[in-house]
Amino acid sequence: MKLYFSPGACSLGIHVILEEIGAPYEAVPTLLKEGAQHKPDFQAINPKGKVPTLTRDDGTALTEWPAIAFWLANSNPGSGLWPAALEEQTQALSLMDYVCGTIHPQGFSRLFNQARFAPSEADAPKVIEQGRGIAEKGFAVIEKQWAGGDWLLPSGYSVADPALFFVAYWAVKRMSMTLPPKVAAHFARMLARPAVQRALAAEGLEA
Amino acid sequence: MKLYFSPGACSLGIHVILEEIGAPYEAVPTLLKEGAQHKPDFQAINPKGKVPTLTRDDGTALTEWPAIAFWLANSNPGSGLWPAALEEQTQALSLMDYVCGTIHPQGFSRLFNQARFAPSEADAPKVIEQGRGIAEKGFAVIEKQWAGGDWLLPSGYSVADPALFFVAYWAVKRMSMTLPPKVAAHFARMLARPAVQRALAAEGLEA
Ligand SMILES: N[C@@H](CCC(=O)N[C@@H](CS)C(=O)NCC(=O)O)C(=O)O
Ligand SMILES: N[C@@H](CCC(=O)N[C@@H](CS)C(=O)NCC(=O)O)C(=O)O
Repeated sequence: MKLYFSPGACSLGIHVILEEIGAPYEAVPTLLKEGAQHKPDFQAINPKGKVPTLTRDDGTALTEWPAIAFWLANSNPGSGLWPAALEEQTQALSLMDYVCGTIHPQGFSRLFNQARFAPSEADAPKVIEQGRGIAEKGFAVIEKQWAGGDWLLPSGYSVADPALFFVAYWAVKRMSMTLPPKVAAHFARMLARPAVQRALAAEGLEA
Repeated sequence: MKLYFSPGACSLGIHVILEEIGAPYEAVPTLLKEGAQHKPDFQAINPKGKVPTLTRDDGTALTEWPAIAFWLANSNPGSGLWPAALEEQTQALSLMDYVCGTIHPQGFSRLFNQARFAPSEADAPKVIEQGRGIAEKGFAVIEKQWAGGDWLLPSGYSVADPALFFVAYWAVKRMSMTLPPKVAAHFARMLARPAVQRALAAEGLEA
């Protein structure tokens, strides 16, 4: 397996999942700030031009964070990363989708790249305010609906946790945002996991 | 079960899935243009303020299109809407996530509501151009990666098909866009399904 990642991008969450599983894989840097995602060799692998992209041993590529996480967890059942019960599987998907479909692309994307939203530079502060509002609302909804204990799901650690982790990492390390208490405690617990520390080190990121 | 929907919103795809399954449910109109999603009674059910929201018979709510689809298909296995093989389950998720995390919120949302992206009214045409580009690229990627025959997956009709349907419906009926050939043929096949016709009629929409 090969994980195409860019340091500190949302691919960080999949990097964590791979480290949790412990199966052999190669991490291939794909530097977004250098435009590597637009180059023909990467476009041939994933025409969406996005990380994370995971290629399997048969050469086929998987895209979309929740789908990659689902496949990794289910093809490595010993990892225990996919919950056993339908209800918790559904909640895992709902959490991953909320992070990957709302908090990231509608919230943090506005904080990282205002020009993608508002062409006029003068509007950047408004875009930032809106992005911050969407991200903060996202964390607040997760806080309010917290059903687990230490981890998001009552059944324990799952692929949903690294999804929350990558946006929490952006909030704390890149945006100096204050997380609500349960989300903040979850972030601290994630940072203490050896798999998270290995993924951060591999991407050259601060723990 | 109750489906909270707004006519012609992305909830249309879940409406189709419910009609395919044929289990009893109530469709509860939640008119976005009247701001029903912001009212306290709806916020108490789903603090995200979004449709589709599905409440189950125990009163608990499910949110996020792919998670609702996953739960409906898996709790109604006789429907055959969830593929049997892990690879096709993964592709179903990847397709649903691409529609619900990219084509819809990054593409069509720009076509429906420019002010949410660019505060300056003068920028609206640029937002529209960008949204159209993202939506068109989305359909082009799906066309290029088409792995199935009549339906998206080689194993046959699944929850992924109503996901493609709701964005194709927006493209054709609301934006007069031209779909690439396989996506266009899929759209025509969807319109011919009795479940789709029932969902459209229930929402008062043109077939
Ligand atoms: N829907 C995709 C989105 C992935 C995504 O947005 N990745 C960003 C990095 S965090 C990216 O590759 N951006 C490059 C670009 O947009 O050019 C997923 O869930 O995997
Ligand atoms: N991530 C959600 C998004 C749902 C969504 O964006 N729904 C729109 C209708 S198509 C909505 O409820 N918009 C109301 C609003 O934003 O106020 C999902 O996949 O279910």
